[in-house]
Amino acid sequence: MRRMVLSILVDNTSGVLSRVAGLFSRRGYNIDSLTVGETQDPAYSRMTVAVTGDNHILEQIEKQLRKLEDVKEITELKDFESVCRELVLVKVDAGKEERESVISIANIFRAKIVDVAETSLMVELTGNQAKIDAFIHLLEGYTILELVRTGVTGLGRGSGDISDYID
Amino acid sequence: MRRMVLSILVDNTSGVLSRVAGLFSRRGYNIDSLTVGETQDPAYSRMTVAVTGDNHILEQIEKQLRKLEDVKEITELKDFESVCRELVLVKVDAGKEERESVISIANIFRAKIVDVAETSLMVELTGNQAKIDAFIHLLEGYTILELVRTGVTGLGRGSGDISDYID
Repeated sequence: MRRMVLSILVDNTSGVLSRVAGLFSRRGYNIDSLTVGETQDPAYSRMTVAVTGDNHILEQIEKQLRKLEDVKEITELKDFESVCRELVLVKVDAGKEERESVISIANIFRAKIVDVAETSLMVELTGNQAKIDAFIHLLEGYTILELVRTGVTGLGRGSGDISDYID
Repeated sequence: MRRMVLSILVDNTSGVLSRVAGLFSRRGYNIDSLTVGETQDPAYSRMTVAVTGDNHILEQIEKQLRKLEDVKEITELKDFESVCRELVLVKVDAGKEERESVISIANIFRAKIVDVAETSLMVELTGNQAKIDAFIHLLEGYTILELVRTGVTGLGRGSGDISDYID
């Protein structure tokens, strides 16, 4: 079993997300995370999908995705050839007593405090998955009230260009 | 027409993304962005969906979403009651000549340089949509090679708790 992160350039149409998501669910493949947003060219969106499976399943997924008409190009974002990042917002139960120690943890990770209420703190962190997991793990020593992760996104290193993929 | 950001707490099942995406595409509603990732409770995921439409359409979307069995709770992330963030990675065509000025722009926005190649720079920025849009707009003075946005994610301000929504 391994985790694969795919960067998928697709036509920016209303049905594309549904078709991609349907392809995964029909086969019972669970998506770890998915992000989709516009690129510099409004005609295209870029999806980043993280999925875990054995090599056979991962090969199948890539093959099936390539058959979709909206899919322009698929790149696997491999560890040393790409920059992968994720954003997390965590709301921690922290009143007067815990506030200082939560802020200390945030500082170590260069996370930002983005909201303070009487009994809670909200912290924003960006990083690779390992960093985010370590951060959340430390905060589990407190009470996490709410947590939201964007899921991983990324780009290949070096000078590659969107026009390598589209006409 | 207005833009609505919905935070949707859903069961973490393989079909939920497909059902939510299908609901939008069947009605021809275009999603501006979507992120989905795990919460602190592995049984649930949180989706953040940004969608633009008139009030009638937005009401319909929310109503239809509430009918889905996997959907546990929907919150609209309104401007002053929530913290919304997005992450963007931008790869800019920048050799010796342009490098300094791209780095200057990055510093103004407190963006991070995450990769340097001979003829390109990759910059990471986190912020609200207005900040990200302004940053991208400035970089359009150069050549953007590739750009990926996670789409917006967010949490309500204050001390709200996931257990407000689930049993």
